[in-house]
Amino acid sequence: MTVFIDITVSLDGVAAGPEVGLAHPLGLGGGRLHRWIGMGDEQDIPDPPARAGEPDGMDAAAAAAMFEGTGAFVMGRTMFDVGIDLWGPDGAFGAPVFVLTHRTEPVLVKGPTTFTFVTEGLETAIRWARDAARGRDICVVGGPTVADAALRSGLVDELVLHIVPVIFGEGTRLFGDGPHPRVELLPLAVTQTPSATHLRYAVLR
Amino acid sequence: MTVFIDITVSLDGVAAGPEVGLAHPLGLGGGRLHRWIGMGDEQDIPDPPARAGEPDGMDAAAAAAMFEGTGAFVMGRTMFDVGIDLWGPDGAFGAPVFVLTHRTEPVLVKGPTTFTFVTEGLETAIRWARDAARGRDICVVGGPTVADAALRSGLVDELVLHIVPVIFGEGTRLFGDGPHPRVELLPLAVTQTPSATHLRYAVLR
Repeated sequence: MTVFIDITVSLDGVAAGPEVGLAHPLGLGGGRLHRWIGMGDEQDIPDPPARAGEPDGMDAAAAAAMFEGTGAFVMGRTMFDVGIDLWGPDGAFGAPVFVLTHRTEPVLVKGPTTFTFVTEGLETAIRWARDAARGRDICVVGGPTVADAALRSGLVDELVLHIVPVIFGEGTRLFGDGPHPRVELLPLAVTQTPSATHLRYAVLR
Repeated sequence: MTVFIDITVSLDGVAAGPEVGLAHPLGLGGGRLHRWIGMGDEQDIPDPPARAGEPDGMDAAAAAAMFEGTGAFVMGRTMFDVGIDLWGPDGAFGAPVFVLTHRTEPVLVKGPTTFTFVTEGLETAIRWARDAARGRDICVVGGPTVADAALRSGLVDELVLHIVPVIFGEGTRLFGDGPHPRVELLPLAVTQTPSATHLRYAVLR
């Protein structure tokens, strides 16, 4: 059972544009970051660069890998709030999702997806996810604050980064703007398309 | 003739540790960033992670690619000042190097390497490098301030990044800590070893 972070960033490490909210779920201009999975606000998206030579399905495979073998998800409250209406009646995740929050709420059932609200902190959320995952993997899907908190917690085995080929220039950086504890990683795999570079790292303890 | 940036960064985009100077040419702890090319202050370098499965010579090939087809280099004054004694009697670059500086100095000849000091700014340095390169490529080798200035200038065709698998946590970020102009890129190539991920991008105009 692996606990992994799966998140998309720009080449300068930005995981969300500024002013994340219902009007801009990925922040202003943040649709650019999720274009590789065919999501994001179309208004935010400039004309795509030439896509000649794109390995068929490599982006789709990288997106699907987040779900394969994954038995539960952990996310932050902001991601839930801006995402829940976009994820549709089935809740998109098809598994138990544990939402870190400060205010308790009843479990929300969306078809095969359940959203359970956890007020006891990240470690508890991951423990509950572990119980719910029944031996399958646990994915921390973001947003950036929760993903980085998970990385800092020492509870994460792998980091999956989808690096979008843009210097975004503003917004929320995954690894923050100030000092960060040193974390050593080991590259495990990489694939690349014109839309993104998909990297998988082991987090070394 | 291509103008390209070739620089090593951590996964959080740090290109040099804090307090770059003669005592720490790559900044405090910065030796970690250049371990993949066998350089860096040994004192700074922790035990290497497991290297099993490393594709033979892929790091060496990535390091050598900076020199192949390159007819001239551009660098910043700080990089010159902290590097010149380390580069030995041949000056390491084997080609004309143009050093951006505020104080003029005579050309310094180190075997096959010449260091020419340019006080007229980056655009002039690149133009002089273009003349000296005689149809070969021009490489902007850093440090991070000059590399980013080159990227912002619109004079760069390609960006080669060697991403070291560490979240460094402090120091000088290649793309700065504040707002940065949006730059769209196109991934051209990637190779990966346990020591680094080598990425080549076209800079889109």
